[in-house]
Amino acid sequence: MQDSPSVGLVAPQTAHFKDPLTLKSGEILPQFDIVYETYGTLNSSKSNAVLICHALSGNHHAAGKHADTDKHPGWWDNLIGPGKPLDTNRFFVIALNNLGGCHGSTGPASINPATGKPWGSKFPMLTVEDWVASQAGLADHLGIEQLAAVVGGSLGGMQALQWTLAYPDRVRHALVIASAPNLTAQNLAFNEVARQAIMTDPEFYDGDYYEKETVPRRGLRIARMLGHITYLSDDAMGAKFGRKLRDGNFKYNFDVEFEMESYLRYQGDKFATAFDANSYLRMTKALDYFDPAFTYHGDLSLALAKAKAKFLVVSFTSDWRFSPARSKEIVKALLDNELSVSYAEVTAAHGHDAFLMPDAHYHQILRAYINNISTGASA
Amino acid sequence: MQDSPSVGLVAPQTAHFKDPLTLKSGEILPQFDIVYETYGTLNSSKSNAVLICHALSGNHHAAGKHADTDKHPGWWDNLIGPGKPLDTNRFFVIALNNLGGCHGSTGPASINPATGKPWGSKFPMLTVEDWVASQAGLADHLGIEQLAAVVGGSLGGMQALQWTLAYPDRVRHALVIASAPNLTAQNLAFNEVARQAIMTDPEFYDGDYYEKETVPRRGLRIARMLGHITYLSDDAMGAKFGRKLRDGNFKYNFDVEFEMESYLRYQGDKFATAFDANSYLRMTKALDYFDPAFTYHGDLSLALAKAKAKFLVVSFTSDWRFSPARSKEIVKALLDNELSVSYAEVTAAHGHDAFLMPDAHYHQILRAYINNISTGASA
Repeated sequence: MQDSPSVGLVAPQTAHFKDPLTLKSGEILPQFDIVYETYGTLNSSKSNAVLICHALSGNHHAAGKHADTDKHPGWWDNLIGPGKPLDTNRFFVIALNNLGGCHGSTGPASINPATGKPWGSKFPMLTVEDWVASQAGLADHLGIEQLAAVVGGSLGGMQALQWTLAYPDRVRHALVIASAPNLTAQNLAFNEVARQAIMTDPEFYDGDYYEKETVPRRGLRIARMLGHITYLSDDAMGAKFGRKLRDGNFKYNFDVEFEMESYLRYQGDKFATAFDANSYLRMTKALDYFDPAFTYHGDLSLALAKAKAKFLVVSFTSDWRFSPARSKEIVKALLDNELSVSYAEVTAAHGHDAFLMPDAHYHQILRAYINNISTGASA
Repeated sequence: MQDSPSVGLVAPQTAHFKDPLTLKSGEILPQFDIVYETYGTLNSSKSNAVLICHALSGNHHAAGKHADTDKHPGWWDNLIGPGKPLDTNRFFVIALNNLGGCHGSTGPASINPATGKPWGSKFPMLTVEDWVASQAGLADHLGIEQLAAVVGGSLGGMQALQWTLAYPDRVRHALVIASAPNLTAQNLAFNEVARQAIMTDPEFYDGDYYEKETVPRRGLRIARMLGHITYLSDDAMGAKFGRKLRDGNFKYNFDVEFEMESYLRYQGDKFATAFDANSYLRMTKALDYFDPAFTYHGDLSLALAKAKAKFLVVSFTSDWRFSPARSKEIVKALLDNELSVSYAEVTAAHGHDAFLMPDAHYHQILRAYINNISTGASA
């Protein structure tokens, strides 16, 4: 299925929202842009739209290419396209860059209209709830009253779940993949270390580094290196790198000795120049804050009682970041509410990153579920 | 047993070694000091000595107090003392600070006799093999030909194992606790992130920060925060902190929101002013390099064929840093060589740190094994 045709060349669009958005924190975003892409064709009843929600460092470029010369297609191109599991011959797929991001939607590097300078440290804190509210605004902008499905992995899965709670009548299916109903203490801890690495970088300047014409490159690099450890399983790292030496023998200095080190440094360096540190900080905070059961004294079943959508929940055996046990908490809470839920625990070696991989079994599960999603509106 | 008497007041001693030590790297340490403490009394046949090897950030102060006003006793005081599992009424216990450390033994902050300035970046790289060689020198200095036992957890366990390979006739028992025959790719990755945090701190000055009268505090803080995540199990963190908020409600800023964050910042801050960054770097490198099977094409059974000691290997169910599977690799290789080995996998919630805890079952296992160690020399 990986050889099936791509959605081809795509171009991002920008939706401008003039009305202020009141955020969960109580702060107000006075106006904002959302950058998005679409794949496939919206049908006349506007009932075949599927929203893709991205994870920590994702963006709106989920499928196709911006130019024939692009080396890589969008980040979920193996899933989205004509004849692919999320078939653009049937569905109108929307992918956006979330608020607070650094790929075109309003974020910390955008100009604050009140000051004429980049928002920087003054950019408000965002939550999954705020993102979903802004995504509903994007659906309004596109004239879509009800989504056939919302699909997301990891932090994206949290958004898919939140859609069913905030707008139970506006989403027919939620695909919640490699996700969790909230972060564990260990998840929180990894995020905190990543943030502290960024925020204690002398070039962070309390978040106002834009004016200094620098970036907290070192901190962001450490944050990303750490992230990569949590995205891969111990076994996957072992299979890919093991204790392989880069130059055959030990050098007994602080240069790269192991291939593993080389990989991490490369990933860290690449990310440190491509992503905005203020965006990264806020994405991790959105993860931390998400906890629909919080206002229900931790009772997830009560929290999910509002949902009406049908669910597909998918987890991966080697995912130690958002383990299958966390997905099962969601499944259990949905079942407590007698909701329709399919669940699959996929045997996969790649850890958390498995949700992005074209694993055959995983894709068959998605294909089978999505094939049964009607493109006609429900009552 | 925790209420049994302590070894009481102890005082560190220093052994000076005038002869150069040729290290595994080929570099030479021209002269060096080793700081150590002893508990109990060496018997007339000098056959009741037990050596304690410390882990990453440990030191020679394993039991007792330096002054009545000390808030805390030595780091393994729950194990070592009269009537304790390692009974100082029977054994003469030696604990030292390894070379490269920052608690009195020669390390990067020591004066390089060739320059009259701190060693800093020029301090040689150390390996587990080098430490064991220097520990054998300390045994010589104390007139001890054969140790009744070498005991260590984590990186200390690697030293205990190495003793049986480097000096098979000089050690009767090795207690290898919460350890591994080498680091996995994931272990290597965590070490590399910690090192990069330190080495990219602008106050690191390539390791020569002593002359600048500063320390790479930020980097060391990040390294330690990260370390703490790997020392505790996900479950232990969940039980201890979960998603508990420090102030009851979300603040939607970058101050401490969760108790977990507060704990990590506290641990990081405390360590950053108490430990030397150059020492930390070298301790992690010693972990990375240890791999007795390396020169045997990865065949651990062949690598351990030299050992003659009897072994106790202990692992902890929730230790995801050095998992029970890694201990079993050691056990299997020892059994392949028809060596005497006892193995216990202790059900414990605390993760890697469990080896330092006074868990009743764990201590009973140690007590039972150590009770059977003769204080008389073997042939």
